[in-house]
Amino acid sequence: MKDDSISNDQDRAAWGRRKFLNTAALAGLSIGAVACTDKSAGTAATPAAPAAPADAAHAASGAAAGHLKPGELDTYYGLWSGGHTGDMRVLGMPSGRELLRIPCFVPDALVGWGITNESKAIMGTKADGSLRYTVADTHHTHASYKDGNYDGRYAWINDKINSRLARIRLDYFVCDKITQLPNVQGFHGIFPDKADPVDPAINYTTRVFCGAEFSIPLPNTGTEDSSKYRSMFTCVDAESMEVRWQVLIDGNCDLTATSYDGKLAATNQYNIEMGAKYEDMMSAERDACLFFNIARIEEAVKAGKFKTVGTSKVPVVDGTHEANKDPKTALTAYVSVPKNPHGVNASPDGKYFICAGKLSPTATVIELSKVLEWFDGKLEKLDDAIVAEVELGLGPLHTAFDGRGNAYTTLFLDSQVVKWNVDAAIKFHAGDKAAKYVVDRIDVHYQPGHINASQSETKAADGKYLAVGCKFSKDRFLPVGPLHAENEQLIDISGEKMVLMGDHPVRGEPHDFIIFKRDLVKPKQVYSLDDFPNAVKDPKESGVFRNGKKVTVKMTSQAPAFSLREFKVKKGDEVTLILTNLDKIEDLTHGFAIPNYNVNFIVNPQETASVTFIADQPGVFWCYCTHFCHALHLEMRSRMIVEA
Amino acid sequence: MKDDSISNDQDRAAWGRRKFLNTAALAGLSIGAVACTDKSAGTAATPAAPAAPADAAHAASGAAAGHLKPGELDTYYGLWSGGHTGDMRVLGMPSGRELLRIPCFVPDALVGWGITNESKAIMGTKADGSLRYTVADTHHTHASYKDGNYDGRYAWINDKINSRLARIRLDYFVCDKITQLPNVQGFHGIFPDKADPVDPAINYTTRVFCGAEFSIPLPNTGTEDSSKYRSMFTCVDAESMEVRWQVLIDGNCDLTATSYDGKLAATNQYNIEMGAKYEDMMSAERDACLFFNIARIEEAVKAGKFKTVGTSKVPVVDGTHEANKDPKTALTAYVSVPKNPHGVNASPDGKYFICAGKLSPTATVIELSKVLEWFDGKLEKLDDAIVAEVELGLGPLHTAFDGRGNAYTTLFLDSQVVKWNVDAAIKFHAGDKAAKYVVDRIDVHYQPGHINASQSETKAADGKYLAVGCKFSKDRFLPVGPLHAENEQLIDISGEKMVLMGDHPVRGEPHDFIIFKRDLVKPKQVYSLDDFPNAVKDPKESGVFRNGKKVTVKMTSQAPAFSLREFKVKKGDEVTLILTNLDKIEDLTHGFAIPNYNVNFIVNPQETASVTFIADQPGVFWCYCTHFCHALHLEMRSRMIVEA
Repeated sequence: MKDDSISNDQDRAAWGRRKFLNTAALAGLSIGAVACTDKSAGTAATPAAPAAPADAAHAASGAAAGHLKPGELDTYYGLWSGGHTGDMRVLGMPSGRELLRIPCFVPDALVGWGITNESKAIMGTKADGSLRYTVADTHHTHASYKDGNYDGRYAWINDKINSRLARIRLDYFVCDKITQLPNVQGFHGIFPDKADPVDPAINYTTRVFCGAEFSIPLPNTGTEDSSKYRSMFTCVDAESMEVRWQVLIDGNCDLTATSYDGKLAATNQYNIEMGAKYEDMMSAERDACLFFNIARIEEAVKAGKFKTVGTSKVPVVDGTHEANKDPKTALTAYVSVPKNPHGVNASPDGKYFICAGKLSPTATVIELSKVLEWFDGKLEKLDDAIVAEVELGLGPLHTAFDGRGNAYTTLFLDSQVVKWNVDAAIKFHAGDKAAKYVVDRIDVHYQPGHINASQSETKAADGKYLAVGCKFSKDRFLPVGPLHAENEQLIDISGEKMVLMGDHPVRGEPHDFIIFKRDLVKPKQVYSLDDFPNAVKDPKESGVFRNGKKVTVKMTSQAPAFSLREFKVKKGDEVTLILTNLDKIEDLTHGFAIPNYNVNFIVNPQETASVTFIADQPGVFWCYCTHFCHALHLEMRSRMIVEA
Repeated sequence: MKDDSISNDQDRAAWGRRKFLNTAALAGLSIGAVACTDKSAGTAATPAAPAAPADAAHAASGAAAGHLKPGELDTYYGLWSGGHTGDMRVLGMPSGRELLRIPCFVPDALVGWGITNESKAIMGTKADGSLRYTVADTHHTHASYKDGNYDGRYAWINDKINSRLARIRLDYFVCDKITQLPNVQGFHGIFPDKADPVDPAINYTTRVFCGAEFSIPLPNTGTEDSSKYRSMFTCVDAESMEVRWQVLIDGNCDLTATSYDGKLAATNQYNIEMGAKYEDMMSAERDACLFFNIARIEEAVKAGKFKTVGTSKVPVVDGTHEANKDPKTALTAYVSVPKNPHGVNASPDGKYFICAGKLSPTATVIELSKVLEWFDGKLEKLDDAIVAEVELGLGPLHTAFDGRGNAYTTLFLDSQVVKWNVDAAIKFHAGDKAAKYVVDRIDVHYQPGHINASQSETKAADGKYLAVGCKFSKDRFLPVGPLHAENEQLIDISGEKMVLMGDHPVRGEPHDFIIFKRDLVKPKQVYSLDDFPNAVKDPKESGVFRNGKKVTVKMTSQAPAFSLREFKVKKGDEVTLILTNLDKIEDLTHGFAIPNYNVNFIVNPQETASVTFIADQPGVFWCYCTHFCHALHLEMRSRMIVEA
């Protein structure tokens, strides 16, 4: 243990990175190394020339690469999943600066998320009015499409703990709806569709696909025999956020991908064994990439060929092996891929889904047109849709693209990103052993998971920046006790060689993220009073309105004062306080806190929010503005007098 | 309004900063301008030469100034208050990167703060076991001292909404105690002492002083007549975190400062009028800096010269004007300072407290030795302790120091930082009108509040970096909807001229912060099993232990498995689950989530945490590791079966 203790010494930074590669997350991971398939052990298995040392690489790119001068704006947005912090984060790129945290599943004391009536209605409450959940584990975030590029309407993010899907409006950067999926556990992968499978006029997102990772009894009775457990793949309506349908499957769902033509969605499966323990989950040499034929599924639903599970009314169609043996009627297709894959990604040319092997050192390239051929009965063997399965290095997890035919895959065990050419990999797989598909490798710090490039998940992939979510930062930042930051590294991929630009610490655990050009969203800075049915549109409407024990307090804010300098209620009253911010100037947000009453929330310009509480403590309570607004901000107060 | 809308256009960044200076926070602030005193309108009122444009200034300092190469470590830590986000943040300097958020007053879904039994005991619960508060408004953070410098033991942070003081251990960077102050509202200013006033052997922090901003009825009966309201100044024991004593005062408390010799503490007062509305609060031309004679207060407490208020047992001594007219027995001394001051800061040479005027364009320099002379009956007029009162610009708020005799004061209305020489100001005030005390000015973006320099609050002030908390970022970052980031700007103060290094967005609202050399703390990365009385020290101790309806589940974690692959309880059981992380490797943290049971928390290496819940839903629940730990992290699960 001694060797791993961190001191504050300068020379700590000089430790060789390889030092870490036999510790921490790697304990026992000879597993990965021995899981190599016996295929494609050609030139690619020999690592390319060692990557240039980070400093030299950095010098080559110039300090300007990721470093903005004061006042200079980022050119890309990043939407980052917050992991078990439970939020979504908005970053500027290439600076890596966090510009906003958007609360969705978890309360937020700044915004008053989980405190205001409006946010509680979105989050969901129990019968007693308290929040149903206050924890979440967000993993993946993806945005709505039009014509194969982001259209700036929505982003979605999942909560794995409670199987919830949240939608973020990208005009105001706020969560406006949350849906809990029925009859699933461990909802993990998520991807919006990019077009309708049937109607070519619908060339934008109307569905969100959700994969459930854990198999459970259906309905969840508590049966101990795990061979009876099943998992489901779920479709949610992008507008109404209602669950449209579910597909009962064999095995489990991990990540999700969708085709540009809207015809196919897929999930990689790491547990076709349906094991309950990790040894069982990794017993098979090959797992699967499971394809869904969206048009056929929706035809089946329309035709009433579904059941329901438990109290849920959602149509469930049968996507198991047994029910889908005939390609011409199959709803699903299980393409085999090596051992415990993690990650399935759609190439920006619309041709391929790529699965990374995790416990196999390979990536598998599946050609979508061939999968469609199989569904048409024109491809004899489904696995013939595999056009490449090539070795990349140890622990491949996720893949990004540069729009120039290259893929970038994280190698968890090797702590590297490998750049490889998809066409060359296909040629190599087809027998051309001279095809050198590995183009470059770069060391990252350390144990990378998710990866994404600017515009990578769109037809407009532009091959400029690559962000790599490194699960361990180790020695890369000052020590701050047991809980280390993770390390999002930014890499310049505009040239032939990858160049490390910078390290950005992030609070655990950001999993997935997307990066897109800043002109794809049109953020609004000021609300409209009409957006809020309960708005107090004029200070003259302010006052205390009593209906028995129910009291409504209406108030407005305009710097540096609230419209009510004081208000009286009686002990035991149920008080609903409605506050409208009449300030119209961008960024002129006010806060409203009531001491000892657990009330704090903000109102942005022209926004209305309300809280309801029982006035159970008599006394004087100085309500004050918590969000800096004005030189007399400190003096901006109202006085609540609760009469005994 | 049209002019203030933000578009994504590139040229947006080129807007003149002065455009903003007549909008937003400044509405109505001719108030500030007309509040100028008629004193010292000398050379200083004429601004110095305009600051160099940001870009030019940056170029002058070199890009390397704030930009670390990949892998390069910061040289300073920053502790940042999180405002109404409710956390404390740890930043690296000069990069401005956020390395950690420390939950204290507010739940945190990643850590399980507010979920685990251990954190709930620190936060405080109601009779039904739910958290007493889930919101907070942190403002000021300061760390413990020894020999006039930080000693790396503790930091403290306040919650203004619920008048709570939290202590952070700086070995593990965690909150270990929270104290709610009795009989006060709006607890705002906070500062630890730096020495004992009597015993020279105690040259380290043993007290924390807390100022309450709002006056309330004592006890809080709900009286409407605000002339009967009073505020108090509170002393908390730094070790036990118990409240030692309180001082009843006239007026209110805002910020707090302490002397290096331990003899004096002070708070600036912006509301000597004790007004209930902002117009009343700003009616007097001069407010006060209120000094506390710590030794005399503690003698009075010892001698039983106190009362108590309401149900609180805390001794309250009388610090009002009326009771403290005789300097030789006075516990308090009210030095007058101009209109609604905000901020009182101790100079690193130990000689002065400096109050900034806010609604007066001045700073007031008070010489501590003269205040002590007054307490000794040797200074006829208390206000003769004022050795300078000089104009700096509009809206002065807070002051930092470089250890070379210069002060740096934020000018909220001018959106500037002014560098001024304290000795020159004293000479100017004494009549030497040739003394040019203003050394430099620099534009900041925009409306700066708190300011601090590296080591500024210690005798080791080193004049290297200056951080400025700008309340409005406006056009400095990409737009992200109505809620803008604030802008912490970093300035190089090592030379004669200030040089802007970079903009760092921060989530609102960080108020105060301190910056210190990285070798002053010695963070620990791995806990000891012995730190936790309920630790499960061996996997063999794992199991389900029933005592009627109370069930204890003992479990350990070692990547990639929990010691119990499954466990059974019965519907209606009160389950206490104890999890010890037996992994010893730095950063090898595990998480533990139970779907639908609102349970998620982490255990750092060798840490133990526990949760208690009622097993009210029958079924199978896949408990899984939420914190990335291993290549088989996804497969790391346990199965809770709740039998109906």
